[in-house]
Amino acid sequence: MTKKLWGGRFSQDSDAQAWALNASIDFDQRLALQDIRGSLAWASALQHAGILTDAETQEIKAGLESIAEEFQEDRFAFEPMDEDIHSAVERRLTELIGPDAGKLHTGRSRNDQVVTDFRLWLMEHIPQLDIALAGLQSALLSRAETDIDVIMAGYTHLQRAQPILLSHWWLSHFWPLQRDRERLAELTSRTAVLPLGSGALAGVPFPIDRHEVATDLGFLSVSSNSIDAVSGRDFVAEFLFCTAMIGIHLSKLAEVIILFTTAEFNYFELTDAFTTGSSLMPQKKNPDAFELTRGKTGVLIGNLVSVMTMLKALPSTYDKDLQEDKVLVFHSFDTLTQTLPVLASAISSIQVNAETMLAAIDDNMLATDLADYLVDKGVPFREAHTVVGQAVRQALDAEITLSELPLETYVQISPAFSNDLYAVFDAGNSVARRASIGGTAPQAVAQQISQAHNALEAMQSNTLLEV
Amino acid sequence: MTKKLWGGRFSQDSDAQAWALNASIDFDQRLALQDIRGSLAWASALQHAGILTDAETQEIKAGLESIAEEFQEDRFAFEPMDEDIHSAVERRLTELIGPDAGKLHTGRSRNDQVVTDFRLWLMEHIPQLDIALAGLQSALLSRAETDIDVIMAGYTHLQRAQPILLSHWWLSHFWPLQRDRERLAELTSRTAVLPLGSGALAGVPFPIDRHEVATDLGFLSVSSNSIDAVSGRDFVAEFLFCTAMIGIHLSKLAEVIILFTTAEFNYFELTDAFTTGSSLMPQKKNPDAFELTRGKTGVLIGNLVSVMTMLKALPSTYDKDLQEDKVLVFHSFDTLTQTLPVLASAISSIQVNAETMLAAIDDNMLATDLADYLVDKGVPFREAHTVVGQAVRQALDAEITLSELPLETYVQISPAFSNDLYAVFDAGNSVARRASIGGTAPQAVAQQISQAHNALEAMQSNTLLEV
Amino acid sequence: MTKKLWGGRFSQDSDAQAWALNASIDFDQRLALQDIRGSLAWASALQHAGILTDAETQEIKAGLESIAEEFQEDRFAFEPMDEDIHSAVERRLTELIGPDAGKLHTGRSRNDQVVTDFRLWLMEHIPQLDIALAGLQSALLSRAETDIDVIMAGYTHLQRAQPILLSHWWLSHFWPLQRDRERLAELTSRTAVLPLGSGALAGVPFPIDRHEVATDLGFLSVSSNSIDAVSGRDFVAEFLFCTAMIGIHLSKLAEVIILFTTAEFNYFELTDAFTTGSSLMPQKKNPDAFELTRGKTGVLIGNLVSVMTMLKALPSTYDKDLQEDKVLVFHSFDTLTQTLPVLASAISSIQVNAETMLAAIDDNMLATDLADYLVDKGVPFREAHTVVGQAVRQALDAEITLSELPLETYVQISPAFSNDLYAVFDAGNSVARRASIGGTAPQAVAQQISQAHNALEAMQSNTLLEV
Amino acid sequence: MTKKLWGGRFSQDSDAQAWALNASIDFDQRLALQDIRGSLAWASALQHAGILTDAETQEIKAGLESIAEEFQEDRFAFEPMDEDIHSAVERRLTELIGPDAGKLHTGRSRNDQVVTDFRLWLMEHIPQLDIALAGLQSALLSRAETDIDVIMAGYTHLQRAQPILLSHWWLSHFWPLQRDRERLAELTSRTAVLPLGSGALAGVPFPIDRHEVATDLGFLSVSSNSIDAVSGRDFVAEFLFCTAMIGIHLSKLAEVIILFTTAEFNYFELTDAFTTGSSLMPQKKNPDAFELTRGKTGVLIGNLVSVMTMLKALPSTYDKDLQEDKVLVFHSFDTLTQTLPVLASAISSIQVNAETMLAAIDDNMLATDLADYLVDKGVPFREAHTVVGQAVRQALDAEITLSELPLETYVQISPAFSNDLYAVFDAGNSVARRASIGGTAPQAVAQQISQAHNALEAMQSNTLLEV
Repeated sequence: MTKKLWGGRFSQDSDAQAWALNASIDFDQRLALQDIRGSLAWASALQHAGILTDAETQEIKAGLESIAEEFQEDRFAFEPMDEDIHSAVERRLTELIGPDAGKLHTGRSRNDQVVTDFRLWLMEHIPQLDIALAGLQSALLSRAETDIDVIMAGYTHLQRAQPILLSHWWLSHFWPLQRDRERLAELTSRTAVLPLGSGALAGVPFPIDRHEVATDLGFLSVSSNSIDAVSGRDFVAEFLFCTAMIGIHLSKLAEVIILFTTAEFNYFELTDAFTTGSSLMPQKKNPDAFELTRGKTGVLIGNLVSVMTMLKALPSTYDKDLQEDKVLVFHSFDTLTQTLPVLASAISSIQVNAETMLAAIDDNMLATDLADYLVDKGVPFREAHTVVGQAVRQALDAEITLSELPLETYVQISPAFSNDLYAVFDAGNSVARRASIGGTAPQAVAQQISQAHNALEAMQSNTLLEV
Repeated sequence: MTKKLWGGRFSQDSDAQAWALNASIDFDQRLALQDIRGSLAWASALQHAGILTDAETQEIKAGLESIAEEFQEDRFAFEPMDEDIHSAVERRLTELIGPDAGKLHTGRSRNDQVVTDFRLWLMEHIPQLDIALAGLQSALLSRAETDIDVIMAGYTHLQRAQPILLSHWWLSHFWPLQRDRERLAELTSRTAVLPLGSGALAGVPFPIDRHEVATDLGFLSVSSNSIDAVSGRDFVAEFLFCTAMIGIHLSKLAEVIILFTTAEFNYFELTDAFTTGSSLMPQKKNPDAFELTRGKTGVLIGNLVSVMTMLKALPSTYDKDLQEDKVLVFHSFDTLTQTLPVLASAISSIQVNAETMLAAIDDNMLATDLADYLVDKGVPFREAHTVVGQAVRQALDAEITLSELPLETYVQISPAFSNDLYAVFDAGNSVARRASIGGTAPQAVAQQISQAHNALEAMQSNTLLEV
Repeated sequence: MTKKLWGGRFSQDSDAQAWALNASIDFDQRLALQDIRGSLAWASALQHAGILTDAETQEIKAGLESIAEEFQEDRFAFEPMDEDIHSAVERRLTELIGPDAGKLHTGRSRNDQVVTDFRLWLMEHIPQLDIALAGLQSALLSRAETDIDVIMAGYTHLQRAQPILLSHWWLSHFWPLQRDRERLAELTSRTAVLPLGSGALAGVPFPIDRHEVATDLGFLSVSSNSIDAVSGRDFVAEFLFCTAMIGIHLSKLAEVIILFTTAEFNYFELTDAFTTGSSLMPQKKNPDAFELTRGKTGVLIGNLVSVMTMLKALPSTYDKDLQEDKVLVFHSFDTLTQTLPVLASAISSIQVNAETMLAAIDDNMLATDLADYLVDKGVPFREAHTVVGQAVRQALDAEITLSELPLETYVQISPAFSNDLYAVFDAGNSVARRASIGGTAPQAVAQQISQAHNALEAMQSNTLLEV
Repeated sequence: MTKKLWGGRFSQDSDAQAWALNASIDFDQRLALQDIRGSLAWASALQHAGILTDAETQEIKAGLESIAEEFQEDRFAFEPMDEDIHSAVERRLTELIGPDAGKLHTGRSRNDQVVTDFRLWLMEHIPQLDIALAGLQSALLSRAETDIDVIMAGYTHLQRAQPILLSHWWLSHFWPLQRDRERLAELTSRTAVLPLGSGALAGVPFPIDRHEVATDLGFLSVSSNSIDAVSGRDFVAEFLFCTAMIGIHLSKLAEVIILFTTAEFNYFELTDAFTTGSSLMPQKKNPDAFELTRGKTGVLIGNLVSVMTMLKALPSTYDKDLQEDKVLVFHSFDTLTQTLPVLASAISSIQVNAETMLAAIDDNMLATDLADYLVDKGVPFREAHTVVGQAVRQALDAEITLSELPLETYVQISPAFSNDLYAVFDAGNSVARRASIGGTAPQAVAQQISQAHNALEAMQSNTLLEV
């Protein structure tokens, strides 16, 4: 039978159910390659510290590399007693090279080993998530470029508010993702801190050069405190926060696209490729991808809560509670990397009903422009607002639009009105006037598009870790 | 190629990644037998409504039963285009009996079908969870019976407070589980409400006898509103709340057992079967099962948050967001049914260090009894409290115990003291005096044990659904 | 200076900031009347147990009653050293009647006192919440009665699905609230369990008749275990779950009303009384009450998470962490009792645009009826679904409606079609056919309305605690 | 009566309850000074854009400054119809300077105004939180310097593991706070982005120099998209994440201090100033400050969940749901700034029982050193681990310690043992050997202390915004 890594002091076998509860191999096998990379670096470190001979080191490394191949070629054979990925690899190494395999764990504990593996995994996978985010940003940016001429109703409180460019609206979903990527980049520097060399909690009693290990593995720095190194999991919570925040941003985008594809809005048409039907109702075409995106946000937030609750009031240092953290990270990562490319493709394939969008802009949406018109005539804005509100009221009562309200009525309400007021009722003009930085005017949006391109490029060249 | 259930109106194929995102077959296959049971009942209902002939009904049922066998014998072959369990079963039924299979979905939608399956699944599995809870309750109750003579320090704020019986402490973890089981029983009646016959959202246009379907399937009642039937998921949130609450109760028990097995408390010894060792430190024996229990509480709470966030602000009626709810329920159910038996066994195997426990009771823990002594002498309790507090202070300053403090000092502090005060310093007496209902005196605990037996039996005979 | 209740053993003053952190008087003063009621019952119990003389009892009760008056008349004067409501009341009682006040705390601890107060508070306030829920249910039911003739588009995935009655939709929001009220009623029986007489954790050493105390205070039963009594807070978590679940139900209702009041849907018009305007845009009328309802759901869920995280892994028995639980309960209670009446009024005042609603029903929404028509002709439903899907496709391609598609085309698609197919395109008929229990047909909805009235009345007479 | 800012178009009064629900003045008055600062900068911007004359600008600014004084001197009089802080300030300005006050809101909406105020508030208050964190770090660092000679048992799984320095343990709580402060600093740059000039959602139609406004107010940059500017609240969620993470770090520290002050551990003694007593048990001294810290973590996590759930699936742009965000931020900020100074003081006042700590180190805790001893003799670590495990087993069976186990027994287990093995049983040596970076050896800890000082100073000079 395969031996446990720690059986020496025990006289009784494990309870089978307790063993099943305890084993983490079902999910931590996903760390196999990181575990082996970590072990390769550790073998070098032990060699340089004089613990391993050159021959032992070579033997161990060759064994590890052939195990890595077994994993890469999906032919690694797990044994029932493989408690976790670390045990499985060491067990296999022993099979391959004999008892010298037992020298590799010198000065190392699974406590520093697992968190090293986990950080390595994130250092490799955060860039993948980042690329998926950049892919969605690119899709949004392309839409902004394509749809630059489309004027639409902007909403607040889901009530029509003011005319805006559709491009401006697409871009309003670009920038939150940019901040999400900034957060991931900042997290990366907190993640790329080497814990290996912390032992179980107290540090390593051999002359290991931890900086060399860090360099070998692509870590940017070395942990300052061995207890903190084996027990700190704020990098996990921070990753789950970042993913939950991304989820929230996607849910917002999805929510509005779902609205815009209703028969009532009818602004967007989704293609067959990104919708599904009903088993009962033959006419249905449902925006499932966007609904699932919205729904999965709940899971991303829940995963964050899971890990934060798990960490609350844990006595330092390593406690077994921490074992669950990896499942949550894998789940949130997979959720996003599965969802993001679908969103990017689905958004690229949307057909915009520009005419319907333009038709939705009624005179009322230019009421603010009418107030601004009065401001230009010297009326204090607050008074202008009240005056226009009264015009809106009268138009509503008469069941006509603001542009149909006769001049006499306007003048009755305020003598500041004159015939030129009707020029206000032009959505294009309204949009064009909002030309300050970040405004919806075409030239401001053009600048924004260029800024977005720069942001994409700057992020690409700077923030990804080379791993 | 296998056909989708809803392809008629679509002219373009699904995007492969969108399809993968959309498909739920990976997890909803767990509902296979419930899906088939539901379909069997639906076939009968269609027969009685005159939609299916007797021959068609027989053919469909025979087909469904042989599919059930395929699932039970683990030889059902999924196809890549099986979108979900409903599609997979209908696809297989068509293979087995031809186009008549297509008559089964008459008047039914996947919207009412999936929630029927899901409710059936819970009606079958809540009792399993209930049994696992009862198992842990029995283990606690046995301990209460076994450890009836053990006196221990009771704690508040984790500071030693008053002597109690260990049995009383074990039972303090019995009653919360009883309430958890009550909640599950109450939830069961809200779960056993038949949605089938609600169609996609509007009801069924054929003369289906929904009460008959309910009886067939073991439902207790029939939903009152078809929209609510297909979209309501409060039973899911309530189940996840119940499991999270159970998790909290287990986390509290686990926390204290972890404390009691420290070298410092040394009240409990865990057996090798329920502990694990360290890969680095040869002497370690860790209470992993209890730490995992505590850690998994985070996941149970997170799963509740996931589903509540998912449900928040969903427009009625069925939205695809709901698809995620099953994963969460399966996860929380599995977590508890895996953990509870381990806890029950681990608790049964604990070795109690009764002498260490008794030795932890110092005179200070009888300070309240000393105040009560003064109350018996007519001193108002608040004054008695202050007086004894001063005695505690003086004993601390003199680095002696309360029973070592000489009578002169006591009398100096309060003239109400006399020589009989020293009789107070007897933990057994202190425990015995708390004999009111729910108190820690042996006779009160004996009554409590008998009450606990009654509660266990009452629950067993009454609240489980017969399914 | 006012004395602390527990200063006897302490030789050093409290740190001022630590004291401020520790004091709970800012929020637990809301329990003043419950605290006094509890003390009145405790005084009687001490009298009957022979601890208090009749005269002392009378004196204490008179004092307590005059303190109650001070609170009711808002003239109770707090002192800076009032640590919590229990200390404040005892301090005041001492001022009023002298040292005999100190006899009241005999056998009692703040641990059992505070949870008694808190349970009493909930026993009084859950009915208030229940009444507010019933108020909203009544508003929904009235709408269902008023709007019985209005036919609207039913939605799934926010896509138009099938015609339904608006009444049916209103009622789909009635039943979830009914389940919420059931949960509150069940919680009430778990809340009305007397903890008083549990002391700090070990029980009471005097012959107190706890059943009598329970009866005095309106509790339905007596706690079985003193440790569980002082430390169990699942009733708090359950209350917060119930309120969060109510929040989710309200958020769903709010979400759709917000949609229905958009210019695009234009189904509902809100009155000025329940909307607000914009400081910038003179034309705006925003559905703030519904948006706030939706937003506050987040807070209700967050409060549940707060208390569950707080409880996770708390070592029994009483720990100071529990102090925070009251703030959360008060907050969630206030949120709902403030929101529910506004929703009830706002919903009653909605103006329904019945013509717009009817106009939204296009032929496609009757596609299922067309498939059912084929079923009646003997076509298996799945084939009928495909056939109608093809008709939908052809109509879309030809940019005509299903009823405009000529018979030849229909017959080409399936020979089962004949001229009577066009009779299907009648929303009223479609609705009327769904007449099974819970369906949207007028007679089914009439039955549902009557069932809803019965449910309201049954709940009113049975489940409210008389307090 | 005071007028609403937006009443022009409305013909009906607000419902009183709806108004109460809607008004935010109860909590957003806390933004008064930020609101006024924002308005002062806006007045300048309007002046430079030619909207306000110099005289008008001066008049408005003088009015605003005298309102600021009213707030600072706590004599600002709110009116019942003050809907929010913006309305209140504009109402008061109108009272002071007349209708010209109405010119200030030109081009501005409450949508961009409130988020400007809120960001300003955080830019001012994050540094306060940062200072409170630095205060706790300093307390921990002082303890690390003071307690440098104290050797204690290090724990994993709460089981004694290996000897460490108490200083090393204190520092293990220093570094997580450092990362928390890094996160706050990075958040600050995302917070200091000016939204003003975004109008309601579409931008500003006047030639406002937004960079000038940003500079005036201390913002570091200008928002790129007006829709994102008024609706983005990830800075709020990120702040609440940071505070929840801090809470988790504090809960971990609190948990262990509570353990270390139990009678069983008896490592730490808290002073009277930071503990409280029991109303029933005269001897109790409870670590309330630490329990409250632990409990409040639940609230900090709950507040994060509140805002994330609120944001989920909100349609852009501004929706009224967002109103709740401020309450949550104020609550979490207050919780931490109240708790942190108490923790810093309480930790500084702890009395360490160094002898008890040292006495807790038994021979078993040096088992790893014994295995390392064998490694030095050429035994592969894994074999050494097993061998020492057997020695532990034999010592346990014989009820003696590892150092009492005779050499014969050792040699029987492994021939690699010789007489020098007994030198291993010296906790000081064990600690001293772990001298690599981050290890627990005195010289490594001394380096760590110096690194911590540098970190504190670097943070102080670099990351705080000058506001």
